[in-house]
Amino acid sequence: MKQYLLSPGPTAVPERVLLRMAAPMIHHRTPQFSAIFAETRTMLQTIHKTQSDVLMLSSSGSGAMEAAVMALCAPGETMIFVNGGKFGERWGDIAKKHGVNSVEIKVAWGNAVAIKDVQAALDAHPHAKAVFVQASDTSTTTEHPIKEIAALTKNLDCLTVIDAITALGVIDMPMDAWGLDVVISGSQKALMLPPGLATIAISEKAWAMIETTDGCSSFYFDLLTERKNQKAGKDTTAWTPAVSLIIGLNEVLKMMLEEGLDELYARHTLLAKATRAGFDALGMRLVSTAPATSATGAFVPESVDGGAFVKYLRDTMGVTFAGGQDDLTGKIIRVAHLGYYDVFDVCTIMSAVEIALNRFGYPVKMGAGVGAAQAVLAERFPKA
Amino acid sequence: MKQYLLSPGPTAVPERVLLRMAAPMIHHRTPQFSAIFAETRTMLQTIHKTQSDVLMLSSSGSGAMEAAVMALCAPGETMIFVNGGKFGERWGDIAKKHGVNSVEIKVAWGNAVAIKDVQAALDAHPHAKAVFVQASDTSTTTEHPIKEIAALTKNLDCLTVIDAITALGVIDMPMDAWGLDVVISGSQKALMLPPGLATIAISEKAWAMIETTDGCSSFYFDLLTERKNQKAGKDTTAWTPAVSLIIGLNEVLKMMLEEGLDELYARHTLLAKATRAGFDALGMRLVSTAPATSATGAFVPESVDGGAFVKYLRDTMGVTFAGGQDDLTGKIIRVAHLGYYDVFDVCTIMSAVEIALNRFGYPVKMGAGVGAAQAVLAERFPKA
Repeated sequence: MKQYLLSPGPTAVPERVLLRMAAPMIHHRTPQFSAIFAETRTMLQTIHKTQSDVLMLSSSGSGAMEAAVMALCAPGETMIFVNGGKFGERWGDIAKKHGVNSVEIKVAWGNAVAIKDVQAALDAHPHAKAVFVQASDTSTTTEHPIKEIAALTKNLDCLTVIDAITALGVIDMPMDAWGLDVVISGSQKALMLPPGLATIAISEKAWAMIETTDGCSSFYFDLLTERKNQKAGKDTTAWTPAVSLIIGLNEVLKMMLEEGLDELYARHTLLAKATRAGFDALGMRLVSTAPATSATGAFVPESVDGGAFVKYLRDTMGVTFAGGQDDLTGKIIRVAHLGYYDVFDVCTIMSAVEIALNRFGYPVKMGAGVGAAQAVLAERFPKA
Repeated sequence: MKQYLLSPGPTAVPERVLLRMAAPMIHHRTPQFSAIFAETRTMLQTIHKTQSDVLMLSSSGSGAMEAAVMALCAPGETMIFVNGGKFGERWGDIAKKHGVNSVEIKVAWGNAVAIKDVQAALDAHPHAKAVFVQASDTSTTTEHPIKEIAALTKNLDCLTVIDAITALGVIDMPMDAWGLDVVISGSQKALMLPPGLATIAISEKAWAMIETTDGCSSFYFDLLTERKNQKAGKDTTAWTPAVSLIIGLNEVLKMMLEEGLDELYARHTLLAKATRAGFDALGMRLVSTAPATSATGAFVPESVDGGAFVKYLRDTMGVTFAGGQDDLTGKIIRVAHLGYYDVFDVCTIMSAVEIALNRFGYPVKMGAGVGAAQAVLAERFPKA
């Protein structure tokens, strides 16, 4: 049975990236590796639209999230975080682990945080070091208004730290223009790589805070040490890097720049729009009132067990989606647009949903969802 | 742009076959290679449902077609061939090249040969050495009644030679039970490999004719020499074999046997049926009155230039189909089912056709074709 990986991460790895990563291993303390490293770092700055440093860490995105909290907050200091989903919740878990005083802005799942609630938290906690927020919380397939949040902290002695793990390479989020202070990503999402590599972009304002913060303790996640090693001219990492993932990232970033950043974002926007149109035609309500560009969540019909539905698609049909978590367990499916996906992946998603609904005895009109998606997707191609 | 190879050959190569073929090269005069060769030969016999020899030739299928004609027919001798398409025509071209007297049974494109016409040719040419016919002529996406033809020659001093290049691994064609004398195939069709390898199964009756025929001359395509080298215990080829293709074939045949031959044929049958339902729902008439299981040809709407349509799909949408040849040039598209294809490939085919029709300004009802196909394809999965 053919396998289709259409979950919001890990995502499919492009053929040319697989081939590049399959080349024989090279040593990481060599001019060859440093040349690749430097080129990759520069391309990361281009994608981030920043002049600031972008570091690579051999960890998952969660490692980079912890590195950011530890570097910016000492035990007993205060941070603010937006909790509108499983990934927002994680900021609080990390803060708790390190004795950092965390102020939670609780958001009902499926909604974006209200700017007035962020403003209120900042007003109530003038000594907060930073606001930690997801650009896109994939657990609820929701986007938060990060540009507006960054505008609130811009003139304060407070940072905006973005988990862009499912946003970098999906939506335009110019770091310098928007005044984002820290932006974190992970390899297995729109960066189209296997898991194991994280990136963290750090503004000058953030570096200043890191330098003056006697932060939480970590030997491995020491951003100042990484900066010294990863800077231009040194072009290596403090500890042994995930060599093949960095080589893969080099190829991925070249693909993105060859496609063009505007085209990259337009493609993701179109795929998300088409998927929403497909679910709408099938009468499947969206999970989010501020739906993400990275992935779309939709409620399965009430008569269908969502957990069994996702399992059936994966094990019987070879199509891997994600289900829901916590309160959404068994109620929704989540499908991906971020990364190496295009028009016919959306067609496959909708066809798979329709066939599976049919197999679950739900009276689906075959072709309704995929047809509605196609009507949107046709925009991707010029008229002949 | 993602690429979708959905033409009736070359077809997509499965991931596990690509990986197996990417392993370091081995030498062909070694026990390791002979072990793989012997296992592959045995599996070929299983697929053919024969006790007879199946040889591997490092050539395209056309090379094996010529090898068969040369081995069975001396210059000046007579052969009969069915010409219902581009591949049928080829038998005549080969015969002409070697001074073999060829009797053509001309069949209107898109139709299967009538058994009575084969009987008439046999009656009129009692000294004909063999009837050469395609199991499936992909140029017209038509199947010929090979079982019935073999029954006609069974008790004559005449053979039935089958071009099964787009039939082996697609439809059940038990060589021994049906009395097929020579069956030819090629690697880049249902055998799911890159081009460059041909197979030829040869019955005892055919060997007897080969041994007594002072056939056309070839050094390279000498089936008697190949038989001596490829037989059990020797397990090698006369000339340097296409090593990686034979290793790939070993993997392909394992995949087929793991799937199960009945399941393999049922899958192809279902995909072809679903595709026909899709074209029917779009009002696109089939090319063939005896449609093949390997590939489906359909007429594009009259207002659409078929040549431009196929080119647009390939160059603008990344979807490679085949167009028409000779009288069918610019009038049809041909899409594949043979090989590494399953449910969602048919969905992609129909979605691509619908979107392309839309882009050509044809008033297609989006989702109609793919929905009709899905209704058939759903049969592939059990009710949940």
